[in-house]
Amino acid sequence: MTDRPGEDALIARFFAPLARHPGALALTDDAAVITPPAGRDLVLTKDALVAGVHFFADDPPDAIARKALRVNLSDLAAKGAEPLGFLLAIALHDGWTADWLAAFARGLNDDSQAYGIALLGGDTVRAAGPLVVSVTAFGSVPKGGMVRRAGAKPGDWVVVSGTIGDAALGLRLRQTPNAPPFAALSAEDRATLADRYLLPRPRNALAGAVCAYASAAMDVSDGLAGDLAKLCKVSGVSARVETALLPLSKAATKALDRAPDLMVPILTGGDDYEILATVPPDRLDPFIEAAKRAGVPVAAIGEITEAGAPLVIYGTDGAPIHLAQASFSHF
Amino acid sequence: MTDRPGEDALIARFFAPLARHPGALALTDDAAVITPPAGRDLVLTKDALVAGVHFFADDPPDAIARKALRVNLSDLAAKGAEPLGFLLAIALHDGWTADWLAAFARGLNDDSQAYGIALLGGDTVRAAGPLVVSVTAFGSVPKGGMVRRAGAKPGDWVVVSGTIGDAALGLRLRQTPNAPPFAALSAEDRATLADRYLLPRPRNALAGAVCAYASAAMDVSDGLAGDLAKLCKVSGVSARVETALLPLSKAATKALDRAPDLMVPILTGGDDYEILATVPPDRLDPFIEAAKRAGVPVAAIGEITEAGAPLVIYGTDGAPIHLAQASFSHF
Repeated sequence: MTDRPGEDALIARFFAPLARHPGALALTDDAAVITPPAGRDLVLTKDALVAGVHFFADDPPDAIARKALRVNLSDLAAKGAEPLGFLLAIALHDGWTADWLAAFARGLNDDSQAYGIALLGGDTVRAAGPLVVSVTAFGSVPKGGMVRRAGAKPGDWVVVSGTIGDAALGLRLRQTPNAPPFAALSAEDRATLADRYLLPRPRNALAGAVCAYASAAMDVSDGLAGDLAKLCKVSGVSARVETALLPLSKAATKALDRAPDLMVPILTGGDDYEILATVPPDRLDPFIEAAKRAGVPVAAIGEITEAGAPLVIYGTDGAPIHLAQASFSHF
Repeated sequence: MTDRPGEDALIARFFAPLARHPGALALTDDAAVITPPAGRDLVLTKDALVAGVHFFADDPPDAIARKALRVNLSDLAAKGAEPLGFLLAIALHDGWTADWLAAFARGLNDDSQAYGIALLGGDTVRAAGPLVVSVTAFGSVPKGGMVRRAGAKPGDWVVVSGTIGDAALGLRLRQTPNAPPFAALSAEDRATLADRYLLPRPRNALAGAVCAYASAAMDVSDGLAGDLAKLCKVSGVSARVETALLPLSKAATKALDRAPDLMVPILTGGDDYEILATVPPDRLDPFIEAAKRAGVPVAAIGEITEAGAPLVIYGTDGAPIHLAQASFSHF
């Protein structure tokens, strides 16, 4: 608290070192400038995160920065887009410290390099309230090639990347660490779940495969059930999913064994930041091959059905699962 | 408060009607997509506004929306860029009402149409704190043509658009309406000043002239004195300005007559959202002609000097004005 630079000094000290893209003008201008790649479309996305809603105020600052960037990277991945750059707006409470901001900038820098997405500019403001971090991310796709939520057709496979439900269980674990299904887990399993909530792992490695083979896609941020319903709605279709096919981590499987009703948060809890895609039958094999080459596990969990059909998720007992609320609302 | 839709319903009701650009996908997707205009660069800017810092929490919601968009439009104008589109993130306090949000969306819609800038997407989040509105705006310039803060050369004219200081006086008027210099003003003059604080008038009509003739430019948001110092710093030059040449509104002139020390907030108070540009001597005439055609008054107020020279603002008495703080900090 003894070391609190003003806005310009703050930007120069903490953020300018990240602004390696020439178009960022070392953050000394009012705007950034980029020459869009020829023959490609620009994909634009903006997700804001608020302390107490999207993360815990006492989360490590580098993890908050990473999460803010990664939820946007996840949107780019699901649209089949290659990351280009991002703008950051941060509303800081009066209680911020130079150490906190240095750690935040460090996390941002690490991920900016790891995912190949350049800091281009932004805004730093003061707010007498919770920390708000707003990121606008830019990516590019071949012209006309952005993968939309609309586009799924009856007969398409419903596919997800990675494992589903870990972050939702990680949040519950954090809220009720001594609840029976969690208390019985190993330290390693507990850490796995907690980490998946703290730090999304966006599937940007899968973007090329999504762009090449998916008929529709989105990232799973508000829970698989609700997000699938959104995709179906704008595609004008329905879907049938088998939880027996759902990819679960070892940790989630163990927790679910002890408390079968955890299937509800697994399906609806959100924060997965995996990719939900629909893939036409004749493209499933090349999609799986491409995912393998990208090092991202994918699993077919069901199929797209006609619009009139009910959207059903079957439990392992073969009976439809009734979900009171299909998705987690961050709002 | 009886009528509070969830996030998706809220977006569909209040914001989707504004999303007329095809790339906005009616706000039903995770991202927007645009095909950048061929042969042009993209200019990106992001300004966040916080209740209690950048506006009053009880300002009319349509004015808050307009201000959030206009401060970003002002950045585009100063860079010589034509508006293309914008993304909006809004962090709403629990106390929001449908009426409030409808008025906010109406203001946004009106300005979106008036300035030809399309809503492309965004994010709506909940925050237990003051309203935060974060806008990312996109514009385009001819390739390599973005006007930067860097670029001013000794001998260039220092030029500003419109009138300077009205918004700073408007803020003071609002804070101390009965202070002598304001109490003596006519109702019309008071309204002029108050309105300039409430609602910036970005100079997008001047963007073409800036792009064609300015050697450097920025918008005046944190006070003319401080913003000029920033421009000089990155340009590696200094400047000399005459307040006798400063364009002042009738209302500001009257207030200044009564209280000459108001020159300090006029020079440092910020929120002008006028354009500060430097123009080489041989381009001044065509710049002024182009500004005239655009309907934007401009005035030459001084000149750029060598880096070693002090940055001086001369008062009407010919003596340098000493400013304890050169700019207003919104941070």
